[in-house]
Amino acid sequence: MFDYIIVGAGFVGSTLAERLASQLNKKVLIIEQRNHIGGNAYDCYDEHGVLIHQYGPHIFHTRSKEVWDYLSQFTDWRTYQHEVLGLIDGHKVPVPFNLNSLHQLFPSSLANRLEEKLIGHFGYNVKVPILKLREVSDSDLQYLAQYVYEKVFLNYTVKQWGVKPEELDPTVTGRVPVYISRDNRYFQDVYQGMPSHGYTKMFERMLAHPNIKVMLNTDYKELMAVDTEAQLITFMNQPFEGKLIYTGPIDYFFDYKFGKLPYRSLRFQFEHWKDDLVQDVGTVNYNNNYNFTRMTEFKHLTGQKVDGSTTVKEFSQDYVPGQNDAYYPIKNDGNLELYKKYKRLGDSIEPVIFAGRLAEYQYFDMDAVVARALGLFNQLYGDVI
Amino acid sequence: MFDYIIVGAGFVGSTLAERLASQLNKKVLIIEQRNHIGGNAYDCYDEHGVLIHQYGPHIFHTRSKEVWDYLSQFTDWRTYQHEVLGLIDGHKVPVPFNLNSLHQLFPSSLANRLEEKLIGHFGYNVKVPILKLREVSDSDLQYLAQYVYEKVFLNYTVKQWGVKPEELDPTVTGRVPVYISRDNRYFQDVYQGMPSHGYTKMFERMLAHPNIKVMLNTDYKELMAVDTEAQLITFMNQPFEGKLIYTGPIDYFFDYKFGKLPYRSLRFQFEHWKDDLVQDVGTVNYNNNYNFTRMTEFKHLTGQKVDGSTTVKEFSQDYVPGQNDAYYPIKNDGNLELYKKYKRLGDSIEPVIFAGRLAEYQYFDMDAVVARALGLFNQLYGDVI
Ligand SMILES: Cc1cc2nc3c(=O)[nH]c(=O)nc-3n(C[C@H](O)[C@H](O)[C@H](O)COP(=O)(O)OP(=O)(O)OC[C@H]3O[C@@H](n4cnc5c(N)ncnc54)[C@H](O)[C@@H]3O)c2cc1C
Ligand SMILES: Cc1cc2nc3c(=O)[nH]c(=O)nc-3n(C[C@H](O)[C@H](O)[C@H](O)COP(=O)(O)OP(=O)(O)OC[C@H]3O[C@@H](n4cnc5c(N)ncnc54)[C@H](O)[C@@H]3O)c2cc1C
Repeated sequence: MFDYIIVGAGFVGSTLAERLASQLNKKVLIIEQRNHIGGNAYDCYDEHGVLIHQYGPHIFHTRSKEVWDYLSQFTDWRTYQHEVLGLIDGHKVPVPFNLNSLHQLFPSSLANRLEEKLIGHFGYNVKVPILKLREVSDSDLQYLAQYVYEKVFLNYTVKQWGVKPEELDPTVTGRVPVYISRDNRYFQDVYQGMPSHGYTKMFERMLAHPNIKVMLNTDYKELMAVDTEAQLITFMNQPFEGKLIYTGPIDYFFDYKFGKLPYRSLRFQFEHWKDDLVQDVGTVNYNNNYNFTRMTEFKHLTGQKVDGSTTVKEFSQDYVPGQNDAYYPIKNDGNLELYKKYKRLGDSIEPVIFAGRLAEYQYFDMDAVVARALGLFNQLYGDVI
Repeated sequence: MFDYIIVGAGFVGSTLAERLASQLNKKVLIIEQRNHIGGNAYDCYDEHGVLIHQYGPHIFHTRSKEVWDYLSQFTDWRTYQHEVLGLIDGHKVPVPFNLNSLHQLFPSSLANRLEEKLIGHFGYNVKVPILKLREVSDSDLQYLAQYVYEKVFLNYTVKQWGVKPEELDPTVTGRVPVYISRDNRYFQDVYQGMPSHGYTKMFERMLAHPNIKVMLNTDYKELMAVDTEAQLITFMNQPFEGKLIYTGPIDYFFDYKFGKLPYRSLRFQFEHWKDDLVQDVGTVNYNNNYNFTRMTEFKHLTGQKVDGSTTVKEFSQDYVPGQNDAYYPIKNDGNLELYKKYKRLGDSIEPVIFAGRLAEYQYFDMDAVVARALGLFNQLYGDVI
């Protein structure tokens, strides 16, 4: 009946389903536990008729022409280049920190001197990690590095990861960039935009193939069992001979037998305003104030013309399976070790393929998971098509 | 695995699924051929962010407190009382034809005289079928009956049903009312409104029960077979022991073995306007002009505040299975005979229940199908709960 069962209707699951159906004429069943397709990129209209992203703001950007062309089969794009302002010392300045931020925050004499030194040492239009800034034996640049570290990075990161400052790994934190540029965009990728009619519409088109069936509201374990020893899959109490592509959490697949993989989660607080727009750009980071990390206004992203506006604040919190959603894997040696135990076990189960942010315990941007799915498809079937 | 399989996620299928899951703790699979739930009542946002009804305008109205209370568990309501204007002799006047229409169309001397005669003969605030008007031996009222018949009813009906005027049955056409009232509303039901967040959101809540699984994009015949002789149902190549509730076309169920049941279909032409609103009320009927029957502006119905407006024109056409959708059963003796043949066969298949507008070959309003589904549920299981 089905050649493939795919768990999860996010970017990975939908891309693979689309490829298998349209390129190999395979019959695919997608099982999705939520009541909608699209995974975390799902968007919908709220009760005020504003198009929102239910699982936090998603901006599409990629350097990959392949990924862009692939998705462009299923959507047109609204030209949109995301800008983020950070609230620093009472000013809202571009982040990543750049020359415009410098001039907004520092008196012009100092700003001009710093600008000259930055350009002198590193050139124009380059991103310099503060670790590199610190290596220069110039007290002005050292000062700048420390300023950016403290005001842009430190408190935001502490909030986001719920860690103590001293727990931060300096080699990692040193990657925070100063962007010697007047480019205020958050991303510099060649391809940037928002699906003209939203992500969900794009997913609907990807899954519109008659060979693809989608079953919503269903945890795959309600219908399937995998005997990992015998390498046997049962689907609706019958042996299933096809392949299973699993894009859910890998630890859940194995009933957490080695323990739970830790994640950070988010609480989203949506707010509606009578105003046409309430902030100047898509996202404002509250780097040093309040207990939410950032606030995003969807109309900037979508360009929607509608009365009133909806924003979302993100509050970072621990992940508790069953209570909230797993968003950001917490990378450390212990957790990676744990993941690898699961991965080894997963690799040994021939009829199951694990792919995606939850199955691979890795933060991926959308374009990265699409590239991952296309790559996987080519690797598995490149010779057939 | 499943106690019930329901074909169709419209009002009938969704109501029965909700009742079976929430009241009897049954496990239900809904199989739906479209890529969305809600049946013909499905609404969604178009590419301009306007909430539209994809299968024609749906206004909810009922006299049944039971139906209203039942649906109110899943939605709040926007207070909305539908008004329709008909384009008659170059004026847009209320339909059903009422005293306001009379005064807009007729010179005041004549209008006053007719008004007095109408009230004198029938009283105030009553709906009088033109058949009754014709029975009064008053040439003014006879004239009015003929006027309403010709200008409000005749050409509209010819357009809608694609028939010749002489093919119309006078006992049926005589039911057209003159409403001796200044009530411009299209419906006089106690309960009227639009689901505050749309029909689809309401359906999502009805189907949110963990016992209900929905499979989209799937014609049930792709997964099931019914052996009508042996009364056996197979689902995914296995015998299915539960009950099948079928809300699709009854003739399709039996592979059209006795022939196809005829329907009228519609072509919908959606148009988007830069204006805030383009007509004065929800629907304007083009009784005597153009080849569409009516045009509806969704923002009147939904109250949405958004830039621009979307309307839909309805063009009546013949139904061709596989090419367009079946909307209005064409009632005549031959067709009813044909339906009854299918019904007798259907009744003989114990594990299958046929319900809804397509399975019963009958035009039902939304409240009527909900009442039907609730009644069916009580009839089948009233003793259990
Ligand atoms: C707050 C936030 C903001 C982001 N912003 C951006 C951005 O701006 N740009 C960008 O490129 N990327 C962004 N991302 C990343 C983006 O969300 C991911 O790249 C993408 O969602 C990964 O797709 P996926 O298919 O791997 O996983 P998902 O989208 O999570 O899909 C997995 C699906 O599997 C389903 N599932 C899980 N377990 C089961 C089960 N047991 N049974 C059935 N179904 C199951 C889930 O319900 C889910 O729908 C952001 C992520 C977060 C958290
Ligand atoms: C133009 C128009 C306007 C209307 N306006 C109003 C109004 O203003 N007010 C009002 O009260 N009523 C209105 N109605 C009536 C309303 O649409 C119906 O009462 C209601 O849709 C009936 O619900 P149902 O569940 O019986 O059928 P449907 O809503 O048609 O649901 C049946 C479902 O079964 C699915 N299906 C069919 N065959 C298969 C198959 N082989 N496999 C899988 N799935 C299948 C279909 O895709 C569909 O989703 C209107 C109808 C039309 C046509």
